[in-house]
Amino acid sequence: MLILAIDSSGMTASAALLTEEKVLSEMSVNNKKTHSQTLLPMIETVMNGSGLEFEAIDAIAVAEGPGSFTGLRIGAALAKGLGLSLDVPLIGISTIDALAYEAGPADALICPMIDARHETVYTGLYTWGDAGFKVLADTRVLNLRELAELIAEMCAQGLYSRLLMTGDGADAYRDQLAAYLKEQAEDRILAITVPVHHSRQRAAAVGALALHRAAQGLTVSADEFKPRYYRMTQAERERLKEQRS
Amino acid sequence: MLILAIDSSGMTASAALLTEEKVLSEMSVNNKKTHSQTLLPMIETVMNGSGLEFEAIDAIAVAEGPGSFTGLRIGAALAKGLGLSLDVPLIGISTIDALAYEAGPADALICPMIDARHETVYTGLYTWGDAGFKVLADTRVLNLRELAELIAEMCAQGLYSRLLMTGDGADAYRDQLAAYLKEQAEDRILAITVPVHHSRQRAAAVGALALHRAAQGLTVSADEFKPRYYRMTQAERERLKEQRS
Repeated sequence: MLILAIDSSGMTASAALLTEEKVLSEMSVNNKKTHSQTLLPMIETVMNGSGLEFEAIDAIAVAEGPGSFTGLRIGAALAKGLGLSLDVPLIGISTIDALAYEAGPADALICPMIDARHETVYTGLYTWGDAGFKVLADTRVLNLRELAELIAEMCAQGLYSRLLMTGDGADAYRDQLAAYLKEQAEDRILAITVPVHHSRQRAAAVGALALHRAAQGLTVSADEFKPRYYRMTQAERERLKEQRS
Repeated sequence: MLILAIDSSGMTASAALLTEEKVLSEMSVNNKKTHSQTLLPMIETVMNGSGLEFEAIDAIAVAEGPGSFTGLRIGAALAKGLGLSLDVPLIGISTIDALAYEAGPADALICPMIDARHETVYTGLYTWGDAGFKVLADTRVLNLRELAELIAEMCAQGLYSRLLMTGDGADAYRDQLAAYLKEQAEDRILAITVPVHHSRQRAAAVGALALHRAAQGLTVSADEFKPRYYRMTQAERERLKEQRS
């Protein structure tokens, strides 16, 4: 199965073309340039590198959120446009799931964090031991204190000796999360960050997860697909505020 | 520290620009096209994506081997040319070390394999647990039976429950290696392959390892750098044959 995967949920814009056997080509740029300018040429570069035509694509995988609202909308619009024109299904992958999958097959408590400002993160908990990749707590918004409580709960079961933090939230809140874990008297776990080459959104990870989801029939039509924000948009917040006042 | 990393040791041609904080841009193509045509435009694409100039580069990291002789020579020539013209040092990284580092922080016995034909692989053994990334057996050429013996030796210490295979040699010899491990009465270890997005040469992994090596002062000048073949080249084999006859 040939999948074109894209991730424009954060600062990184990323595209990859892959099958069950290998990543045929990929490109990622972590720059301040707007994704509306970079993502489409990037997809063309990836297609050219592979030597394949768009018509060979079987499905489009896209990071569905959480992340930057604008970034998610650009990714969704592009994925929908490609899905409609190529008449192939879409596979939406949680940005947090993909970050955990990029961290690698570690028999640890894997904790991706995307900075959502003010000590709040988009996060989840995962592990990837002998039984394969497993979601322990699915994608959600938590403040750091709540996340520390959730981690302490998992640690109480005594299954994990390492907490593997990843994502830009790990860079921003590593020390603060460690302090809250200490408050929870949680010192059974060694908190480390994943190495630099596995620490950010990468379309190849989105695509690799999508291959598993597609095998389970978890695809949607280009029409049906919607990004998932996990938070109210500014417009929604303002409407709610108006309704309340 | 800004590192430009390249890997042209195998079927994959890959370039990445990274610092200790993040991968700024990267591109990889796993295609039959010759690296002599693809690698230089790829480096230009990566530089353009980052918005930085060549002059900002502090060091060149390059997969020094083992791998395809021609691929290694192209990578070495390009790295030396860039190193000389930019007046920056080079950091040679074993292709096998980089494949293990790409596999991820797994508390397992990590075994990269590059197919060297006839049940022979370029390989090594690694682990990446609480104590960080560790080389257990450095880069070498082994036949599958010798590799199975080496793995059985490591397993005898009872430290590992998972064997994490990666590289194109894992695809080619997975079942054969399992059979030889069985011959060694080695059934204490669960043999698995890394997921598709971590299973091939990637310049970002070469660069991430190079950042550590550079911090230890392990750089060489562009003049000094040489690819490491780990095997005699065809010319060397023929000369030896002539001398013997």
